[in-house]
Amino acid sequence: MKILVAVGGNALLQRGEPMEAIRQIESANRTGKALQSLVKEHKVTLTHGNGPQVGLLALQNDAYKSISPYPFDILGAETEGMIGYLLAMSLNAAIFDKKIITIITRVEVSKDDPAMADPTKFVGPVYEKADADKLAEEKGWLFKLDGKQWRRVVPSPTPTRFLEKNAINLLMTQDDTIVIASGGGGIPVIRNPKGGFIGVEAVVDKDLSGQLLAREINADFFLILTDTEGVFLNWGEPNQEQIREIPVAELRKHKFPAGSMGPKVNAACLFVELTGKKAGIGKLEQAADIVAGRAGTIVVP
Amino acid sequence: MKILVAVGGNALLQRGEPMEAIRQIESANRTGKALQSLVKEHKVTLTHGNGPQVGLLALQNDAYKSISPYPFDILGAETEGMIGYLLAMSLNAAIFDKKIITIITRVEVSKDDPAMADPTKFVGPVYEKADADKLAEEKGWLFKLDGKQWRRVVPSPTPTRFLEKNAINLLMTQDDTIVIASGGGGIPVIRNPKGGFIGVEAVVDKDLSGQLLAREINADFFLILTDTEGVFLNWGEPNQEQIREIPVAELRKHKFPAGSMGPKVNAACLFVELTGKKAGIGKLEQAADIVAGRAGTIVVP
Repeated sequence: MKILVAVGGNALLQRGEPMEAIRQIESANRTGKALQSLVKEHKVTLTHGNGPQVGLLALQNDAYKSISPYPFDILGAETEGMIGYLLAMSLNAAIFDKKIITIITRVEVSKDDPAMADPTKFVGPVYEKADADKLAEEKGWLFKLDGKQWRRVVPSPTPTRFLEKNAINLLMTQDDTIVIASGGGGIPVIRNPKGGFIGVEAVVDKDLSGQLLAREINADFFLILTDTEGVFLNWGEPNQEQIREIPVAELRKHKFPAGSMGPKVNAACLFVELTGKKAGIGKLEQAADIVAGRAGTIVVP
Repeated sequence: MKILVAVGGNALLQRGEPMEAIRQIESANRTGKALQSLVKEHKVTLTHGNGPQVGLLALQNDAYKSISPYPFDILGAETEGMIGYLLAMSLNAAIFDKKIITIITRVEVSKDDPAMADPTKFVGPVYEKADADKLAEEKGWLFKLDGKQWRRVVPSPTPTRFLEKNAINLLMTQDDTIVIASGGGGIPVIRNPKGGFIGVEAVVDKDLSGQLLAREINADFFLILTDTEGVFLNWGEPNQEQIREIPVAELRKHKFPAGSMGPKVNAACLFVELTGKKAGIGKLEQAADIVAGRAGTIVVP
């Protein structure tokens, strides 16, 4: 089967761990091992989040005062390189006979996307009110309260297509090749009326990009891996209950938290609705079992 | 003709300019325009340096005290993403009908390379003696005097092969595709006796990697672009003289500065010696003229 696998930030960092390089390398190695049996049985293409990593780059950019912080499209490109490299090394350590190819991926979004006018995604460090006001004036950044602290917000538009789609599909024709693409949801760009593209300071949800990539490569299955065993009803309550298999129309009736399971459920549903194929959500270490229907939550048409 | 083009740091930053993002974007756009006519006539694959960019990342890593600076292989991967993205955007702005694909490239080096035991390449910020001594003890880094200031040194080993060679060649079979690869000389890795690879803190000379890539993709011409018009005899003297065309054996008799023209001349000579084909060195803006033999320095068998 052809499978698009989306791994979250926890594939490169256990929740709450400090961002030390060695921790990222160890987590990447766990991911490589966890995907070993899946890769042996199926044709896998991999995408990944970049939340903690792009956050660290923003903090490092902020700390070095001699040069202005770089825009988020460039930071996103840096994380695609960093994480792609770490995952490629970890996969090569676990699966010797495959070639792992990381493609820096740009994703087109529309300047007319309503989300572009309504930034909602928190990025980078927290600021004092005075500093936030100063940056807002200097750079035109928008700030909102994240809890009690001011943080920058950027839009989270809908991905429409990947500029590197053909290259990804071509590489996937090779039996010995695993492609890593659309890292961090891809670098968002809009079309330049004069030709070419313009990078935008936005963040595309990696699972939303993942379902688009799954469709663009004609995947048979869309697998979202995270650090919980699947989708739960009444999560955190005494009566919490894991959903094992659920028709997409049924799953759409439930609400899930916007910051965690919500985007994953939405992306899985979209893939199933638009393709009539199945999607799965579950624990990284159970990747092969989820695809085999023995673990996780399976969304069916 | 199939051409491997190597652009230096100046393709993304004019010499002496501050490292502001906008300056890098403008320089990348100049590079895109400069390569426009070459790309129309020939099949181009692109590689690039990363000296100023990896230097900035090292400074930013150093400035943010909460997390230890990341190792140079990871920083190299970050620059491959950043620069690949900027060059891809600039090429798309100048050449609308091509797909520009950036491949995160790893290059294998040997742990037994004599260079590995004799670090000579300065990287990252300058340090006070006391700080350098502390870091040397804490991290096992090696420091040497760069002029009057202490800087870290890493090895500069010889590249032996690219892990992504087949992917690069496959993508190049597409008429509409330009590949960007081996950025910053590629991320150096050594073979792990237990399987897979291990990243090493080293820097591979981007022109030395460039000539290897040129041979691995079977290029007809290896073009090194920089900010001088070619190779000069008696450079900086009143009697300086540009070499227009020179047999490789003749060029080998001359000495050039290790920090600037030396590595370019050596890489061009290697390509010509090993393939019997031609190489060119010259100014970015004269790319097409150099290949046509109307500008630059041409090294012939």
